[in-house]
Amino acid sequence: VTDGASKSSASPETLSWVGGKAGHLRLIDQTLLPGQLAFVDCDRVETVWEAIQALRVRGAPAIGIAAAYGVYLGVRQANVTDETAFFDRLDEVISYLGSSRPTAVNLYWALQRVREAAAAQQGPSVSDLQDGLLEEARRMHAEDRQICRTIGHVGADLLPDGSGVLTHCNAGGLATSEYGTALAVIFAAQDQGKQLQVFVDETRPLLQGARLTAWELLQRRIPAILICDSMAAQVMREGRVQLVVTGADRIVANGDVANKIGTYGLAVLAAAHKIPFYVAAPRSTFDLSLSSGEDIPIEQRSPREVTHGFGRSTAPADVRVYNPAFDVTPARYIQAIVTECGLIQPVSAQRIREVIGQHHSGT
Amino acid sequence: VTDGASKSSASPETLSWVGGKAGHLRLIDQTLLPGQLAFVDCDRVETVWEAIQALRVRGAPAIGIAAAYGVYLGVRQANVTDETAFFDRLDEVISYLGSSRPTAVNLYWALQRVREAAAAQQGPSVSDLQDGLLEEARRMHAEDRQICRTIGHVGADLLPDGSGVLTHCNAGGLATSEYGTALAVIFAAQDQGKQLQVFVDETRPLLQGARLTAWELLQRRIPAILICDSMAAQVMREGRVQLVVTGADRIVANGDVANKIGTYGLAVLAAAHKIPFYVAAPRSTFDLSLSSGEDIPIEQRSPREVTHGFGRSTAPADVRVYNPAFDVTPARYIQAIVTECGLIQPVSAQRIREVIGQHHSGT
Repeated sequence: VTDGASKSSASPETLSWVGGKAGHLRLIDQTLLPGQLAFVDCDRVETVWEAIQALRVRGAPAIGIAAAYGVYLGVRQANVTDETAFFDRLDEVISYLGSSRPTAVNLYWALQRVREAAAAQQGPSVSDLQDGLLEEARRMHAEDRQICRTIGHVGADLLPDGSGVLTHCNAGGLATSEYGTALAVIFAAQDQGKQLQVFVDETRPLLQGARLTAWELLQRRIPAILICDSMAAQVMREGRVQLVVTGADRIVANGDVANKIGTYGLAVLAAAHKIPFYVAAPRSTFDLSLSSGEDIPIEQRSPREVTHGFGRSTAPADVRVYNPAFDVTPARYIQAIVTECGLIQPVSAQRIREVIGQHHSGT
Repeated sequence: VTDGASKSSASPETLSWVGGKAGHLRLIDQTLLPGQLAFVDCDRVETVWEAIQALRVRGAPAIGIAAAYGVYLGVRQANVTDETAFFDRLDEVISYLGSSRPTAVNLYWALQRVREAAAAQQGPSVSDLQDGLLEEARRMHAEDRQICRTIGHVGADLLPDGSGVLTHCNAGGLATSEYGTALAVIFAAQDQGKQLQVFVDETRPLLQGARLTAWELLQRRIPAILICDSMAAQVMREGRVQLVVTGADRIVANGDVANKIGTYGLAVLAAAHKIPFYVAAPRSTFDLSLSSGEDIPIEQRSPREVTHGFGRSTAPADVRVYNPAFDVTPARYIQAIVTECGLIQPVSAQRIREVIGQHHSGT
């Protein structure tokens, strides 16, 4: 389904726009890391949809940016000639991209933002409307870089010098335009001169921790220790970690957090070991239209991710599988949420509104 | 290192003694399941040692039985001619086999039992002493079958009809002579006509749950649902399981239980969800010489089990790995321990002594 993949030894960017208006979106194919650094070049919206669905690009913020570029590609390829056709096509493309993954709200946030930006333009030509979509995607892309830096800055003080940190899945540069959210906090603490040791959950079934987070940490020469997800409790019990920090895919009005499957269990285990549990995420991850985490749709993924996750069968052929991609961590387990707008602590509906603004509705 | 492996479509036995005094030990090579049912034929002690170390035979009770046969093989191959040489070689073989895996106490229990049985024989010939080793191994083997049946019978009432059960690793027929410990409880409840649904943790890094437990359950037509270890908390939160039952590799005087890595985390999660957590294990798993779980040696295994667990690399080549094979669950998290001597409930030093007998020292 991909338009093409090319290898490169250049410094890797999670996603980049190559060229001008006739250009294309280039993504690192994260399913091939760390063994192979290859790129997917997308000049059609279908390629972007597939890349999101197949987790070639993943991580809530990165999905949002990829989708914004995807909107531009989808409208461009339709060659619409009048404003009505433009907005019809725009809605069609937005609806299509929205179907790629159901849990991360940044996807809907980005699509909505692009839609609103287009609607806000008064009487331009179809060509200008189209150009405006690309400009908006590029603006979101640039903003995300700044947001991640700010999240790192806001959160760095939470990490004591010499501490052991546990993280799950990948909330690093590969999950964003660059730098990350949970890993941004770690990177910023490192930049402050702190010595840290990071325990990395491998994050079954798709091993984003082993494949992506370990890779990012090693690139920055941060001591990373890979563990299986089932070892986190023991690592806590042995006093090897002083805090847990993860990203988020959706945060609702009461502070409940949807994130990669396994996050909820970690939060319960952290509480049992009296270890603070932090979440780092941009404002675009908040969905204040939902009052509780119970309302978040949880993506169910293919059984084959569990039974054939490593290129060969690891279970009986006829076994049933339950494979939820996310879980929901209740706000009461979360010590603080790190955002570019400031620290949300305690995690309460009121404090969330204070920090990220009452008018923000998420979708 | 194996003497040879052969394929067969015969009904599989975890371990069997083939032939008479000149015979050999045949083991299912569990590292190849469920894709391939192959056997390792051991006629030398070195082959038994390698099979235990490499987890071709695994599960605390099965390790004990394999080791007992291994003692006979090791003495037989030495061709000793007098009693002194016999006992020297016996001690040498016992020490060697004891070095194969450090955590499961059944290994030491079995070796000690064989040693004591040999020492108890008054004035026989070396040939009779040697035959006595094989007889003792066969006796232990036969006893284990009966013990597992009894464990199932004792524990079956703990499982309400219609309940969801979560288990970790493999404490089934493949971990024993047949029938199992934790799975014996499930099998016995099924035999009572109860409808059960069993959630099976895949059990990284070596996937004994996905490979072995799912296979055993499907063979008995018990509904099995495979999950990643990181999904257990979510399955509990969704109300899908009413209890957890696992096996054990060593249980000490205060009731602390060493078992496959991930067990401790499950116990903490079960407590947080007010779900009872049960352990099923034979009397030979108890080591009353240790007062607390802190004293149990925890086997550390190769990083490659984590980074190359599926035949290909799933992490950066230079990443550090922490890979403890076991963890220790404090007695306070365990609702009851099911043994062939009866139910230990509450799990306390006093109740353990009452049920399994004060004179039993484990090693």
